[in-house]
Amino acid sequence: MRYLITFSYDGTNFRGFEKQPGLRTIQAELERVLNYINDGKTPKIVASGRTDALVHAKKQTAHVDISVSITELKLKRAMNSLLPNDIHVIRTQVVPDNFHARYMVVEKIYEYKLNMGEFNPIERNYIYQFNKELNVDLMKKAIKLFIGVHNFRAFTPKKDERNSYVREIYDADIVEDNEILTFIFRGNGFIKYQIRNMVGLLIQIGLQKKKVEDVIEILKNKNRSAGFRTAHPEGLYLADVIYDSKDLKK
Amino acid sequence: MRYLITFSYDGTNFRGFEKQPGLRTIQAELERVLNYINDGKTPKIVASGRTDALVHAKKQTAHVDISVSITELKLKRAMNSLLPNDIHVIRTQVVPDNFHARYMVVEKIYEYKLNMGEFNPIERNYIYQFNKELNVDLMKKAIKLFIGVHNFRAFTPKKDERNSYVREIYDADIVEDNEILTFIFRGNGFIKYQIRNMVGLLIQIGLQKKKVEDVIEILKNKNRSAGFRTAHPEGLYLADVIYDSKDLKK
Repeated sequence: MRYLITFSYDGTNFRGFEKQPGLRTIQAELERVLNYINDGKTPKIVASGRTDALVHAKKQTAHVDISVSITELKLKRAMNSLLPNDIHVIRTQVVPDNFHARYMVVEKIYEYKLNMGEFNPIERNYIYQFNKELNVDLMKKAIKLFIGVHNFRAFTPKKDERNSYVREIYDADIVEDNEILTFIFRGNGFIKYQIRNMVGLLIQIGLQKKKVEDVIEILKNKNRSAGFRTAHPEGLYLADVIYDSKDLKK
Repeated sequence: MRYLITFSYDGTNFRGFEKQPGLRTIQAELERVLNYINDGKTPKIVASGRTDALVHAKKQTAHVDISVSITELKLKRAMNSLLPNDIHVIRTQVVPDNFHARYMVVEKIYEYKLNMGEFNPIERNYIYQFNKELNVDLMKKAIKLFIGVHNFRAFTPKKDERNSYVREIYDADIVEDNEILTFIFRGNGFIKYQIRNMVGLLIQIGLQKKKVEDVIEILKNKNRSAGFRTAHPEGLYLADVIYDSKDLKK
């Protein structure tokens, strides 16, 4: 039976999602637990995508084939009783055998949190402590220029080689709550470091070291060395992964 | 010169505020750093009060006498450059030589955060993961009964011996934000475990295992074994310590 697992994690003490020998990763923890439940056979976990070290997930998804017979609720409970307390299974559901947690993603939502105010030790692993004033009006104008279908080559590492850097951003916005900014991006998919680099450029615009229109220019020129830095990982959250309900129906 | 230090900390990796041999405490960290700044002499730190292990502070205060000459801003910067990143000095200010960080407190504000929804691994050290529905209307009625001057004997550990258990609560309220409850208590002072025990009783009322009027009954009877538990420490925040501005003026 194929299951869709919806889960959340605190990325602080993980070296990212993907399994790596000798390192504590989310995939390794999930596989360890599923091996135990699945009678000593380790099922392959196919996630909606990876997250980097220190990045959090409010909702991440993965599909997995379990050969032993177990109800959805029992699978959730068994996983949660065996998982460490920085990973939590929110839901498990039986899905069709051809369901695919990565290929069938319709929309992904990411959030990035930044603190312009005084350094806050309580939130240091959960909100990027930028601790300087930014011109939020300029950033709010600039973020809208990311909406649409664009080639995001300039927002991935130079050495990142892939077939296509074209992705669509459905919506993007900044929500201001006192001195905390939350950047929200909705799109059909995001490539490596894309969000942290978009936030990095928006920070330069907020500091007035870059202009609002530079977003258009950099998207067009695809030039990675365009004078902005990848924003810190700890402010980033995979907030939701959305599928078509038709694809989920067994 | 006597300084008032205003600081915040993440209590997760501390064994509470007060210095204890061989344990990592907030007082020990502050004294280590101040010893360095104060030319090898460790100044005595007098805080507004202690916090327990795992309890956080958005704003805590302490006074300290520094014998070397240093400006307010330089003291703040020096402390922050030497402190670990789970303690942060927000402000330092020169105060009169007779200023006292504990005796002169006019008001203290505490917050307690509780999640009634799904277990959230990202907030597990910062919001008590109760993960069950509560009747918030009943709790909102009950919390108001704590307002006023009361003997809080029933809300401290049995072995806690002190001259007076009488404290005044100026205001108390519950703010609901989706499934997160924030209990807010303002008062002239709080005794050991008082807030966590008041929250513990309010939880029993929210579960309808205790009645709203039981608050009055338990305050009157001073009976500690009244069928509620001390709420977990990780949801508790010292939110602010307020002084009379006259007392602060040099």
